[in-house]
Amino acid sequence: MSERIFPTAQDAENAFYEALERGDLDGMMAVWAEDEDVICVHPGGERLAGQDQIRESWTRIFASGPQGRVQVANQVAISGMMLAVHSVHENFTLPGAKPGDAIPVPILATNVYLRTAAGWKMIVHHASPVPGQAAPQPTAPESGPKILH
Amino acid sequence: MSERIFPTAQDAENAFYEALERGDLDGMMAVWAEDEDVICVHPGGERLAGQDQIRESWTRIFASGPQGRVQVANQVAISGMMLAVHSVHENFTLPGAKPGDAIPVPILATNVYLRTAAGWKMIVHHASPVPGQAAPQPTAPESGPKILH
Repeated sequence: MSERIFPTAQDAENAFYEALERGDLDGMMAVWAEDEDVICVHPGGERLAGQDQIRESWTRIFASGPQGRVQVANQVAISGMMLAVHSVHENFTLPGAKPGDAIPVPILATNVYLRTAAGWKMIVHHASPVPGQAAPQPTAPESGPKILH
Repeated sequence: MSERIFPTAQDAENAFYEALERGDLDGMMAVWAEDEDVICVHPGGERLAGQDQIRESWTRIFASGPQGRVQVANQVAISGMMLAVHSVHENFTLPGAKPGDAIPVPILATNVYLRTAAGWKMIVHHASPVPGQAAPQPTAPESGPKILH
């Protein structure tokens, strides 16, 4: 596995969505903490716990081909010394989509990052579909991260 | 609003589910941080941001009457100095339910707590239904909180 170091939670989040777009399993798993307590909830899915279950789920997702573009919007970030929580909307554009095609429903994600000895890593990704909305979201203005001391 | 102090994130979580069971709006809102960045996602719902939107949603939910019993299970807790993240299954028993009645689907919740000057407060509640499962969950053994330093 690649041993990428993410100096900030935002760096880890950027790498998460880049790996998701590319269907890059090693890149995806490099974002996750090597810890039994990591948790992933895909939209409409059950809780997956631990690296093995999470790797298996992304393997299955990436086997279906490119995931398209993901525009991350409306981030609310709350940052502590050791933990950071980001709430974001994920707006997907499917590969090959043309103007006038149905727009996939946006996904709402809560992402939690932990500062480890090897930089910031993802420990929770909880995603759920937003009902009856078309991307992009007009709500909730962007705001900078809130730093806790 | 009542000014309850929660010495731990677990105390705040207990108060959250007690208020949910009782349909106690003041008790519920006393759990939430008085901060614009608080976020609540009800099962299948949009992101609500800020005390006003969150209070309004619980007002509407509690107006429908008692919420029944909530059994919280399979907690995974990750605790920092300032932030704590709990992942739990919520198993509801509706009021007046009899043996043999349909069991509500379990809910999966990611709860995030912040240590404030007024004790631990909830800042994120992200809930989503677990598909095709009956309560209680057989997965993921209980484990004690993981303390970060």
